[in-house]
Amino acid sequence: MTEKKATNITWHEGAITKKDRERLLGQKGVVIWYTGLSASGKSTLAHAVEEKLFELGRVSYVLDGDNIRHGLNKNLGFSPEDREENIRRIGEVSVLFADTGVIAMTAFISPYRSDRDQARTLVPEGRFIEIYVKVPLSVAEERDPKGLYKKARAGEIKEFTGISAPYEEPLKAELVIDTSELNVEESRDVVIDFLTARNLI
Amino acid sequence: MTEKKATNITWHEGAITKKDRERLLGQKGVVIWYTGLSASGKSTLAHAVEEKLFELGRVSYVLDGDNIRHGLNKNLGFSPEDREENIRRIGEVSVLFADTGVIAMTAFISPYRSDRDQARTLVPEGRFIEIYVKVPLSVAEERDPKGLYKKARAGEIKEFTGISAPYEEPLKAELVIDTSELNVEESRDVVIDFLTARNLI
Repeated sequence: MTEKKATNITWHEGAITKKDRERLLGQKGVVIWYTGLSASGKSTLAHAVEEKLFELGRVSYVLDGDNIRHGLNKNLGFSPEDREENIRRIGEVSVLFADTGVIAMTAFISPYRSDRDQARTLVPEGRFIEIYVKVPLSVAEERDPKGLYKKARAGEIKEFTGISAPYEEPLKAELVIDTSELNVEESRDVVIDFLTARNLI
Repeated sequence: MTEKKATNITWHEGAITKKDRERLLGQKGVVIWYTGLSASGKSTLAHAVEEKLFELGRVSYVLDGDNIRHGLNKNLGFSPEDREENIRRIGEVSVLFADTGVIAMTAFISPYRSDRDQARTLVPEGRFIEIYVKVPLSVAEERDPKGLYKKARAGEIKEFTGISAPYEEPLKAELVIDTSELNVEESRDVVIDFLTARNLI
């Protein structure tokens, strides 16, 4: 029994940490959580920030309806439970990205404060940046790029945030950006300046 | 109505693609899917590859029980449906990582061929690398680092892969690595050589 068999080879665990990956990438793994009404400009702002980060040689990734609702969360509907599970999974995935050292950006209405606060608890202090992309409801309705507000007003879409379902404004967002006041470049620069000031990029 | 209001500002979409991110990172976004019996060495091999990739300046991330079962998939059990959903979500998340340009590595038993093949369909041709981490069952049982095989033999764990639940061997794995024949460094180098030969790193 003292013979060392090939089957008993010591298999050690790799020891690459989040910190190692951040050093390699020259940035910090963070979650930037954009929240706000439909048509507030969350996804557009996130992609504008992504573009600027890329110019700066930084790696980010935008999680939004396009890549989440048709994939990971395609088995979820719009019931309250499913909406909660939708945001829960997005929070968990964004944590994995941040753990990789990537700048994860999520662009979802995420109307419930408790859901957003839950996502915040998953990330180390200072690494969760909640950005309230704020517009007056009237402005969002006027933009209405997909005609959703019109349908909601007509009762064709039920439980539509801002019309027939609540939107709970953030109480402690790291940034509040009013996209009816700032254009996309100005909004983007607010985010980039914040990341720079916090030594995250 | 011809007046351009601030609320009608043209919000353009950022246009950073997977290809851009791959160029930035100097690597290709791929999914490396390790499959095999419990105690075959999947996670250890994945972490050894991660370590080597890091030395080479490449960014990878290992999805395994440690970061998935306690987070994204903590609301899943071990029923057949939940096992399928477990692997489905892992597949979808690994695709997001690959889309970021990161080398995503998954280390799960993933005993069903159909589940693994489903994950493969999510990734572009040539970007899904299935690695069968193969050991004789007797070797896995002898290793049994967590005493799971012992419990399974005693009937304390039900539906344990290889004992009381099936393991469907891959039919078309990109690599088959027998960890009862190769040690961890040799196994790791097989993977690294493959990635190099395919111009993925």
